[in-house]
Amino acid sequence: MRYAVLGTGIVGRTLAATFSALGHEVVIGTRDPEATLARTTPDAMGNPPFAAWHADHPEISLATFADAAAEGETVVNATSGSGSLQALTAAGAENLDGKVLVDVANALDFSAGMPPSLDPVNTDSLGEQIQRAFPGAKVVKTLNTMNCRIMVDPDRMAGPHNVFVCGDDAGAKKAVSDLLVSIGWPESAVIDLGDITAARGTEMVLPIWLRLYGAFGHTDFNFHIQGARAAG
Amino acid sequence: MRYAVLGTGIVGRTLAATFSALGHEVVIGTRDPEATLARTTPDAMGNPPFAAWHADHPEISLATFADAAAEGETVVNATSGSGSLQALTAAGAENLDGKVLVDVANALDFSAGMPPSLDPVNTDSLGEQIQRAFPGAKVVKTLNTMNCRIMVDPDRMAGPHNVFVCGDDAGAKKAVSDLLVSIGWPESAVIDLGDITAARGTEMVLPIWLRLYGAFGHTDFNFHIQGARAAG
Repeated sequence: MRYAVLGTGIVGRTLAATFSALGHEVVIGTRDPEATLARTTPDAMGNPPFAAWHADHPEISLATFADAAAEGETVVNATSGSGSLQALTAAGAENLDGKVLVDVANALDFSAGMPPSLDPVNTDSLGEQIQRAFPGAKVVKTLNTMNCRIMVDPDRMAGPHNVFVCGDDAGAKKAVSDLLVSIGWPESAVIDLGDITAARGTEMVLPIWLRLYGAFGHTDFNFHIQGARAAG
Repeated sequence: MRYAVLGTGIVGRTLAATFSALGHEVVIGTRDPEATLARTTPDAMGNPPFAAWHADHPEISLATFADAAAEGETVVNATSGSGSLQALTAAGAENLDGKVLVDVANALDFSAGMPPSLDPVNTDSLGEQIQRAFPGAKVVKTLNTMNCRIMVDPDRMAGPHNVFVCGDDAGAKKAVSDLLVSIGWPESAVIDLGDITAARGTEMVLPIWLRLYGAFGHTDFNFHIQGARAAG
């Protein structure tokens, strides 16, 4: 499979490196590849500049959003939520049509400072906005409810935990579930929440995720849905 | 301890019966006790009319919101979220002053049909609205992230799961945590998320809770925060 991962931040890097290690061809998409490679300072989160990371991953290519999306058979949106629609517009609807579009972004709005709020929220979601803007893409929202180390290394956790998928296309959800299983997620850990409107639910867990981060002082935790001894 | 439980629905009944079984004095508050007792049909959720339940719990008294709140040393808001501020206004600020006010309600807005949205949401929460409206009360938001059977019977679950508390008064949170432990919650299951603004986080998990309910076909599940093998 050829994957296009849109976004050069820590989430995009982590997913790209993982897909590549699994033997897939991977191209990372960015607005301006030259500018991305020219950066020499760590990002706002303290991650090393992209070029430093890229030197360790020469097998992963870097291209414009459009070139990357054109090349990818599956496209992953790992851009920041506030820039996702713009990035996908740059990628081009024609390069997304008919493809699985894995959306792992969160629409965090830092414009009023900390803590961020969500935009959109409640009666809409970023996943739905993307599906509406690119009706030819098969959007599957997943993985947005955890730190990226856990996304690609579920076995690091001390016990069972879950990953959610939602989207309007059953085949696309099956393909994404298979991808998750190939990364190391037990099939039983993947919970299908239904159509893309369930993205409201998975995006709206961000505020409690942020509070848990504050309470624990680290991001090495994930949601697990515990069932009853005899459910029903 | 004397508990006033505001709300005659299944949540209020379940909490009231549990507190009573633990040896506490319990009074349930309602807008109009005579009207509550006169109802002869099941509620919208199919629960038996209050009088039928009350016949099995004669040790629990029924009073107006104000009389119940005046009597209770600790007050529990188990009214529906859309009516909570009105119910607490009827209870009277003077009857809440200085008391722990346990808020288990969710601000579900069914006015546009199913699924409900949340109101308030994102940059505010019902817990915060209540704290602002009744500054003399020590509001602790808790238990709103699960079905009421689980609230009072945490041991029914097949493995570890969590209950969140938040509020501005450390002593009130300690009292509520002790109450939770007395109900059967392991102390380690109680996660303190900080001040009352964290109610945004716990209230905003409702949409994914509703989708999980839809996916599973039952409400016998709860959130568990899984940690890493070696956190940090």
